[in-house]
Amino acid sequence: MKSPTQATRAVCLFSGGLDSTTVLYDALRRGYHVTALTVSYGQRHAREIESARRILQPLGVRSHEITIEMPWGGSSLTDSSLAIPQALADPPADDKIPSTYVPARNTIFLSLAGSLAEALDAQVILIGANAVDYSGYPDCRPDFLSKMEQVLATGTRAGVNGHPLSIEAPLIKLSKKEIVLLAQSLGVPLEWTWSCYQGGTRPCGVCDSCGLRKKGFLEAGLQDPGETYEVSSKR
Amino acid sequence: MKSPTQATRAVCLFSGGLDSTTVLYDALRRGYHVTALTVSYGQRHAREIESARRILQPLGVRSHEITIEMPWGGSSLTDSSLAIPQALADPPADDKIPSTYVPARNTIFLSLAGSLAEALDAQVILIGANAVDYSGYPDCRPDFLSKMEQVLATGTRAGVNGHPLSIEAPLIKLSKKEIVLLAQSLGVPLEWTWSCYQGGTRPCGVCDSCGLRKKGFLEAGLQDPGETYEVSSKR
Repeated sequence: MKSPTQATRAVCLFSGGLDSTTVLYDALRRGYHVTALTVSYGQRHAREIESARRILQPLGVRSHEITIEMPWGGSSLTDSSLAIPQALADPPADDKIPSTYVPARNTIFLSLAGSLAEALDAQVILIGANAVDYSGYPDCRPDFLSKMEQVLATGTRAGVNGHPLSIEAPLIKLSKKEIVLLAQSLGVPLEWTWSCYQGGTRPCGVCDSCGLRKKGFLEAGLQDPGETYEVSSKR
Repeated sequence: MKSPTQATRAVCLFSGGLDSTTVLYDALRRGYHVTALTVSYGQRHAREIESARRILQPLGVRSHEITIEMPWGGSSLTDSSLAIPQALADPPADDKIPSTYVPARNTIFLSLAGSLAEALDAQVILIGANAVDYSGYPDCRPDFLSKMEQVLATGTRAGVNGHPLSIEAPLIKLSKKEIVLLAQSLGVPLEWTWSCYQGGTRPCGVCDSCGLRKKGFLEAGLQDPGETYEVSSKR
């Protein structure tokens, strides 16, 4: 991660969740000229797109919200006939990769971000991937990100011309607790961020993503304002 | 490229052009169980999608036709305010990469194909990339395809579980002449394939892609049936 002396142009993959919002705020604090990229891909928690819009609106950040079709499913996050696993109740899959893994999602997202970055003549792609308190997705690991950087260095005009795109994942080595504390210190509107995998109007509190978020706030000793903001008295 | 003893499941990136149609026919001849993937991405020659449908229809091949948004342009192939370069009249760009290069297009396409391949439990991705008589796109070169294979090996469930997806580019080392001859020997309906970058109803005959196609047929000593089928008496 570099500390730019002159404004670095960056494309930030931005879902409206806790992690990518923290990355966005961190990049703005560091003076990056950020363009946010939000992808609608048939996720059952399309609710996160509303959060993304709400978070972006007061920031005046340039953004693209795009739709891509992935009608082949292959994930409980895009196929509503499959159940979303519960963090504590459901055993992990044999390969530790949960059914919410969306085939090649971050490869697709980083490819699209790379395309946008080239078109904008940007130097950096930002992603909220995290490999500590994470779901076990193979496309959130440093080795994957490093190989993706090599692909973009080889397969783009920018790379061929000696200006390879850099992929920065500032949260990659942070625990969820550390992400929560960083978010708080950056003034992230935590109450607007959306993490739940379910498609409801309120977080379910039991999916993997809700479970990780709960853990982070608990260990950070903070109340999740998203909970009081969105969650019913059932919890 | 392997010669399967039992049916290999493959996803074939299929545009309806000469190259990808040849790859499709070659895969079917080799007994692959093919699913074709055609991507509409705002290309000005969306006419190629009609060709893809027409070619697929009699084959009974399973297929997906998807749409993705890339509103940032960055290419004369997706931004109609930019001119398509002419093969002979326009000098090449300094970096030899023409304005028809679409930022990170093959990275995006191979990511989408990788996602579909994972969902189908397929083993192979087929792409009509060619690095001999080609446009100079960085994402058509063997080194890029090799790095993309590594990304998919690292960032997908299939890869993590020891079944990495293989990217096959059977035309990569062929000249356009050899592709034309291979297509003819495979019975490819050449008259239905579409190569022209312009969005007209007939090939322009002067863009890079028409130029390469002409060269291939000329060197192969064959008449392009697409010409008599589609082209006006102007040529």
